[in-house]
Parts: sequence; structure tokens; C-alpha cells
Amino acid sequence: MAPHLVQPGWRFWRQAACTLGASVQHRTWAGVSRIPRLGSPWGATATSPRVYRSGFSTSPRAPEVMLTRERYPVRRLPFSVVSGEDLAAFERIVPGRVITDPEVLEASNVDWLRTVRGSSVLLLRPRTTEEVSHILRHCHERNLAVNPQGGNTGMVGGSVPVFDEIILSTALMNQVISFHDMSGTLVCQAGCVLEDLSRHVEERGFVMPLDLGAKGSCHIGGNVATNAGGLRFLRYGSLHGTVLGLEVVLADGTVLNCLSTLRKDNTGYDLKQLFIGSEGTLGVITAVSILCPPKPRAVSVAFLSCPGFSEVLQTFSTCKGLLGEILSAYEFMDAECMWLVTHHLRLASPVQESPFYVLIETSGSRAGHDAEKLNDFLEQVLSSGLVTDGTVATDHMKVKALWALRERISEALSRDGYVYKYDLSLPTERLYDLVTDLRARLGPRAKHVVGYGHLGDGNLHLNVTSEAFSPSVLGALEPYVYEWTAEQRGSVSAEHGLGFKKRGVLGYSKPPEALRLMQQLKALLDPKGILNPYKTLPAQA
Amino acid sequence: MAPHLVQPGWRFWRQAACTLGASVQHRTWAGVSRIPRLGSPWGATATSPRVYRSGFSTSPRAPEVMLTRERYPVRRLPFSVVSGEDLAAFERIVPGRVITDPEVLEASNVDWLRTVRGSSVLLLRPRTTEEVSHILRHCHERNLAVNPQGGNTGMVGGSVPVFDEIILSTALMNQVISFHDMSGTLVCQAGCVLEDLSRHVEERGFVMPLDLGAKGSCHIGGNVATNAGGLRFLRYGSLHGTVLGLEVVLADGTVLNCLSTLRKDNTGYDLKQLFIGSEGTLGVITAVSILCPPKPRAVSVAFLSCPGFSEVLQTFSTCKGLLGEILSAYEFMDAECMWLVTHHLRLASPVQESPFYVLIETSGSRAGHDAEKLNDFLEQVLSSGLVTDGTVATDHMKVKALWALRERISEALSRDGYVYKYDLSLPTERLYDLVTDLRARLGPRAKHVVGYGHLGDGNLHLNVTSEAFSPSVLGALEPYVYEWTAEQRGSVSAEHGLGFKKRGVLGYSKPPEALRLMQQLKALLDPKGILNPYKTLPAQA
Repeated sequence: MAPHLVQPGWRFWRQAACTLGASVQHRTWAGVSRIPRLGSPWGATATSPRVYRSGFSTSPRAPEVMLTRERYPVRRLPFSVVSGEDLAAFERIVPGRVITDPEVLEASNVDWLRTVRGSSVLLLRPRTTEEVSHILRHCHERNLAVNPQGGNTGMVGGSVPVFDEIILSTALMNQVISFHDMSGTLVCQAGCVLEDLSRHVEERGFVMPLDLGAKGSCHIGGNVATNAGGLRFLRYGSLHGTVLGLEVVLADGTVLNCLSTLRKDNTGYDLKQLFIGSEGTLGVITAVSILCPPKPRAVSVAFLSCPGFSEVLQTFSTCKGLLGEILSAYEFMDAECMWLVTHHLRLASPVQESPFYVLIETSGSRAGHDAEKLNDFLEQVLSSGLVTDGTVATDHMKVKALWALRERISEALSRDGYVYKYDLSLPTERLYDLVTDLRARLGPRAKHVVGYGHLGDGNLHLNVTSEAFSPSVLGALEPYVYEWTAEQRGSVSAEHGLGFKKRGVLGYSKPPEALRLMQQLKALLDPKGILNPYKTLPAQA
Repeated sequence: MAPHLVQPGWRFWRQAACTLGASVQHRTWAGVSRIPRLGSPWGATATSPRVYRSGFSTSPRAPEVMLTRERYPVRRLPFSVVSGEDLAAFERIVPGRVITDPEVLEASNVDWLRTVRGSSVLLLRPRTTEEVSHILRHCHERNLAVNPQGGNTGMVGGSVPVFDEIILSTALMNQVISFHDMSGTLVCQAGCVLEDLSRHVEERGFVMPLDLGAKGSCHIGGNVATNAGGLRFLRYGSLHGTVLGLEVVLADGTVLNCLSTLRKDNTGYDLKQLFIGSEGTLGVITAVSILCPPKPRAVSVAFLSCPGFSEVLQTFSTCKGLLGEILSAYEFMDAECMWLVTHHLRLASPVQESPFYVLIETSGSRAGHDAEKLNDFLEQVLSSGLVTDGTVATDHMKVKALWALRERISEALSRDGYVYKYDLSLPTERLYDLVTDLRARLGPRAKHVVGYGHLGDGNLHLNVTSEAFSPSVLGALEPYVYEWTAEQRGSVSAEHGLGFKKRGVLGYSKPPEALRLMQQLKALLDPKGILNPYKTLPAQA
């Protein structure tokens, strides 16, 4: 990112604030920049999520994670068990990359949220599509179950084994295959880390069409397999639109090459769409072709205090009208989220305390024009009382620091205790009612009930924490949350997918006819059910 | 559209032209506006395509269209023949809407290009999803083949019967179900005409995410079934991204309700994607939920003369850099296209004669900012000689008139003789080479060999005309064009689909593994093959 938007905007903002909100207290970036970058609370926000996420999961104080097969009522399906002959066969396919060391396996058996834990005894690290094909052909013949794994940053237990599935890691499939400078088309292996790809295309004047908190660890193949949404969804839309092609290895080892780099291709059914969001249950994605938009010349972030949720909504309407095509993100978080990131991660809030906070990002091609639009917007929301305090950043590091307040909520939650996570699509006008409702319902049983998320996409991240896993809290939450969502015709998984933990609730958002067709598709593409079993689709009776 | 971009831009443009291109001759909008609107060549451009398209197809001078089963080597599959009992059953399902009158059927048996002709004896006009379901359940039980038909504006013979398939028209399924003013989500029946929907959402401050020449006739259900691209693709992307939900009736009459209005929903496989671009062969789309972007406050169109194709490409690069997020279309056409629209449709060219023409549209939220960006761009392309002449329009009627030059090429071609149509995705740098190549190859056998299309999407519309259908011309074109395209790893159908006429060439753009999976999907969803037979997938041996 090359932020050129600037002092004019910033100056205006302070001026407007002084004129329009006499009682408003301002802590500005000028103050913030006096704090030394490294080692300071603000400095921490500049570190890569790759660092803090893995740092967190290996934290010595982290308690042992209960085995999934013990915590949940799930029964192992009659797959074969890995034999010495299998190990020898795999050693021939991926020599030196057949891992059986329990210590190495531990990290791949546990999800990063530390809520589920498999007991796989085998991790394979192919480098090529051909190797993946050979591995799956062998597994298919031998009826061995496989758990495809990218960066293992999933939220619903989809990326780790449930029992002893073989872990098929894409970690070594991390090569960029090509990048086309005129069209912005990137072709790469599935195991490329999102942040590395971002860097690669940004050096060439483009950006990745998706961005998420886990960017430092997550793999592009995993992003596509979960149909990740993230922080740029509002501007660049869904992966169903931006992914141009996929290479996928099917359950029997067949390589399906749909790795097109064309923006338009209406020759027959668009097969790649089947695999976007299928969570590795229909095939293993080995390469991705994706359209990258041009890198914006100017990026600004405004972080604002809102007195109520109704003001959050009205600010969104105003912002769509006045920022138009340069609006690239509209995120919100409540006061409890701010407490969590300031308390557990020691980040500092740059604005006055308030019931709600909004983060607005603009990305455009002309800094001066963008600044004018942003200023007009800020003047309007301030003068109308929709916003009571705020700060604007255009400098890259400051933009990152503001984003960290929103991006690191998930990490702060994990430090608060056991986390019950819900990722819901709801009509925006009712989005926050569920949070208020649950606070009353749970009372002191919950440490925190928080709401934040991608308001611009109608996507609420609802999180509840308690000291430790508690069946009573879970019982108060489920099926209540799902029923509430279904009543609003919402989605019980907006962007996280279903994985292992949510597969039973598919029926709250999809009718039986859809579920039946999904099961037929699974049977067609993976007749033995070896690909990521116990995930996505409900257990069949 | 509410164009506010204006005189400042326009004045600048004339000034720049005078300063920079002394030998350039200018015919300006000022001149054009002196011509009376109605009855003039320019006036014609303001009429709806619905008018001219149907006017053309019923023209008294149009020759009889040969029956498809006589022109092409195709064999009827063993479906049942409609009986008196079937007619009685349909009369119970859709009373008064069972059409057997040969004169009414004639229009539904022939495609609008007048190149293929079926011999159906029955047209059904359901009004509701339930009626479609009952019809398909009956057809499935009786093994009767069905040809779903929207506005019958397809380019590849996909929308008319090949033999005696029952025509299932969506013409009476034309109700808007809901529109959400905050999110811009439109839900409507499949038979709504695109132009009517555009009007509906524009009155509410939004636009449809797609627009095409056939908007006055085409149905939204047909647009989705063909995965139509069109004129706004560059800005708003593919229907795979903008369609939020579909209701589809499967071959056996099952209603699959995936009519979500949510921007994000990752609960299981995204089934609706299967039907987008499946050309009615996997199910009949009965309702569509689609995300409409906010209506731009300012729209401008620049129509420019370029001295060569290399300049067309360089102008595109310049334009992406300087117009950024407000660029909404980049179309090109060659001199022969201009000859066709001026000669056959009596449109007047607003610019100096040139080997190539470019149409650039900008859509933004702030007229002044957009005008500044457009002016800077025009100054640069003029001063560097990439563009030799041009005109800019911001007034709604003038914008429409400029668009007509590009949108009506297809109509002008149809008046020129028999048209061989190719709709290809190619690497932009080589896009026009095929046109030049074919001119040399065909010599005087062709009346015209023309190239135009959505350069911004890498999409070439290559069209060849001859006095009448000629097997020798066809033999010189095919498989040559397909082989040429395959060598460039292009697509033999960028946006028109395969329908009947192109189904044999799928293999040029997709590998055998993909073809096999498509056939398996067809067998899963339509085991008797009654839905739009002889379309999309190649005939099986």
C-alpha cells in the first residue's frame, strides 16, 4: 500500500471536530507517534499475524486440548488404518516428507483456537500436484481417510483430523507459477501464504482481492476451500467472482485442470465453483488462479466512536452515499471488544470510549479526491451527532495499527478463556439485537458476550467467553443462536464454513432438498468419503 | 443514470484537441444535437432494443430459416411425443396457457439470429414456480423433453428447440418479489425483462450489475442460465459473484430453494453456482436474487479514434491507471464495424474515420472528481498520439447514442447476410491478430470479417458475414478459429455459452477430465436428459 492521503484531510478533521463537537475529547495520531514503535502497545500492531498467531498457539500456559473424539459424540467411520506398507508407499511418493514424529504432528492435530484435537499419526508434505495425485490414488485404493490442511487457521475445526486421518499438508506447495502484469492475474500453488502473495503482487502494482487477520499463516488454497470472506469483501466481492481457475485433485487421484487465467469462460459448467467453499471434502485444491485488482494509490482509515448501534447503521448509509466507489471496508466492534484488545493485547484505543466503534477504509486512485470525499463524510457524521470522536490515518504503519484493533479481536478473545464462536449473516438492521439478547440470557455465566464484524456485508461475529468449556453455557447458546438466525432468514455460517463444529447446523440455513443434493454431490465426487470426513455435511443416520 | 459530468470536461477536451492535434477534424455533440431527435439516425439509437430486435426478426424480407434437424447432423433422442392426454394434463396445470397455434409457436421455434429452427408443437406459459414444478414432474414421468425459454435472445441456438421439445416459457413469470433499499438486493421471478428490472432499481437509486444489448428482450433467468457477461462486467464482475440466490426447479419437479438474499453464506456447497451458466440443462431457474450496486451519480462516455490496435491496448493501460475505480467499460470496435452500423442502421459516426474506435465509460459518485480524472486521461492519450479524435458525452441521451454504436453492431451484422459468430476469450495482446489472419484466409469469400468486444475483459466478438450460409466458408472457419484459440489457451465461448451450435467445441477449452465430470453432473441432476437436450455438452457416442 502507498498511502498518499494526508494532512489536508487530517487537518480538516481536527478542525471540524473542534467546531462541531465541543465536548469531544481528542487523542490524535500526533500523540501516538511520540510513542516508540517497537515494544510499545502500538508497535505490537505492526508485527505479522503469523508471528502472534503461532506464538499464541504454542504458548506454554495453554492448557491441553481435549481429543475431539472424547469431547464430541462422533464415531469413527470404517476407514483403513495406516500400515507399514502404506508408509513405504508414501515414502516412495514423497521421499523424506513422510512425518510420523508425534511432536511435529501435535501442531497439525490441534486447531489454532485450541478447541479440537485429532489423533493422526501421519503427516505428508507433497511439493507437486503429481505427488498429491499419487497420494490420493493410494489412499483411495486403500480406503484411507485424508485431512487436507493449509495454514490451519480455520475457525470451525475443518482443518485438523477428527480421528486418525492422514494429514495432507500444502505447506511445501508454495510456489508462484505466474503473474500477468497487464491483467493482474496471479497463478500459484495452493500452499502459498496469503501475506506472501500480497507482497508479491503489491510489488507489481496490484493487491490480493482478499485480506484477513490470519494472512500471515493461512494458505490461498485453504482460503478458497473455505470461501474466505475477510476485510476486502465489501469492495472486491466473493472468491466465486475473483477466482478465475483452480487445479484440483479428486478423491481417486484424478487431476482436474481448470486453471484458467481468463476473465470469461462459458464453456460448459463452471466446475471450479463446486470446490470454492467445499472445505476439502470434494477435492484437494492444488493451484489457484486469481484476479488481483490494481493497488490503490491512496488508502485512508478512519476509526470512529458511535454512541449507539442505530448510529452505526446511519453512519454506514451516509458513508455509502458520500464515499461511493472508494469505500473499501466498513467494520464495527462494540465496547467489550475494545476492552478485550486493550486489556489482553495492550493495544491503546485512539478514540474516546464509546458503546460502538467503526472502522472505515477508503482506497482510491487519487489522494486529493479521496481526501475531499472523506472530509465531507466526516463533517456530515460529526455535525449530525452520528459520530462523537474519531481519528484518521493515511500513513501505512498507522493504518495497520488502526486495523489491528479490529483484526486482533479474535486473538484477544482466545486469551480471555474458552470461546464460543458464531459467524452469522443477518439483516443489518437486526444484527446487534442478538448480542444484547444473549447478554441478558447468559447473565454472569459468560465472561464476555461481544459483537463485531463486517457490517457492510451483513456479517456479525458473535463471540462468548467463559473460564473453561461449559456444557451449560453451550446449552444456553445452542440451538438458541441458530434458531434466532434462522428466524431472520440469516446464515449460521457467513464466512467461516461448517467444518467439524458446525456441520450439524446446516439445516438451519438450507432446505432438505439442498442438503440432499449436497450429499449426492459428495457421493459423486468422493464415493468412499475419504476426503475430510466428518466435515461440512451432517452425519448421515 | 443521472449524468452530471459536464461542460468543464467537454470544453477541456475541445481545447486539448485544438492544441495538440492540428490536423484532427472534429464533429462535436454540439453539431449532433442540432439534428432532430426523432426519425433521425441519432434518434433511432434512443429506441429500446426490444423494439428493434423484434422488429428485425419479423421483417417481411427475412428468408425462411432452415430446420435445425435438416441443416445439422443431429439425431432425435428417444423421448416421448406429446399426446392428447399430455395436453389435457398441461391444461389442468396452466389453464389457458397451453399454446399449440403454429403461428404463435413459429416465433418461439426460431432464434433471433434466424440461424436455427425447431419444430415444437407445444408452448407452455407458467406463472408460478409451483406450475413449473408440476409441468416438469409430468414431463419427467412421461419422458418428454423440455426447452426452457426466456427472451430468446441467445447467440448459440440454446434457447429454441432442436426437434419437438416442449417450449417452457418464462414470459409470464415477470414479477418483482422484493427490493431491499439498504442493501440493494433484488429478488424477482426469472421472466423479468432486464430493462424493466433496470428501470425498477434505478428508480430506487441502484443499477443492475449487468447490462447488454438485448436488455429490452432478455430475461434475467436466461441471463443467469447463460452466465451473461455484457457491458458492465469490467466494473461489477461475473454473475457468479453478484447473484446471491436462485430458486431452481430440477428435472423431476423438485423445487430447490436457494433464494438467499445474504451477501455471505458458507453453509455447505454453493449449489446455485452449478446453475449459473448451465443453459437450462441442469434445472429451470424460476427466481433470482441479485445484488445491485448503487446508481452512479455521474456517468460519462468517451468515444475515441485510435490509429492502430497497439494504441487501443496502450490507451487501455493508460485508462486503468488514470481512471482507476471509476472506469466502468472499455469497449473497442474496428473500422468495418463502424461501416456496418453507419451503412445498415444509418447511425452517424461522431468521430473522424479511423482503423479502430474505443468506447470508455466512467461511473462515479462525484461528477467533478470524475471529470478531472477523465480530462487528465484524455489530455494524456491525445498528446501522446494514442488517440487521434474523440468526443465525450455526459447527457443521458447522448450517452445512449454513443453506446448504440457499439451495442447495435450485432444487429447490423444480421442485416449484412448470414453471420458466423465467434465469442472468444484471448490474451489481450493477441486479441486482434485472429481477425487480421482470417481476413487474409477468407479473402473475397467473406463479405466482412469484423472484430469488436469487451477489451477490458479480454473478450473478442469475431464475426464473419457471407451472402448466405456457405459450407465452404464454414469449413475455412472451423476448426481453424477453435484451434487458433486453443493454442492461445483462450476460451471458445467467453460469454455466449455453447448452446446447440457450439456444444461440439467444448473440448478446445476444457480437458477430458472436466468434460467427464460435467457429464456426471448432468446424469446426476437430469438422469433422463429431458432438460434442454442437444445443448451445452457434446453428443455422446
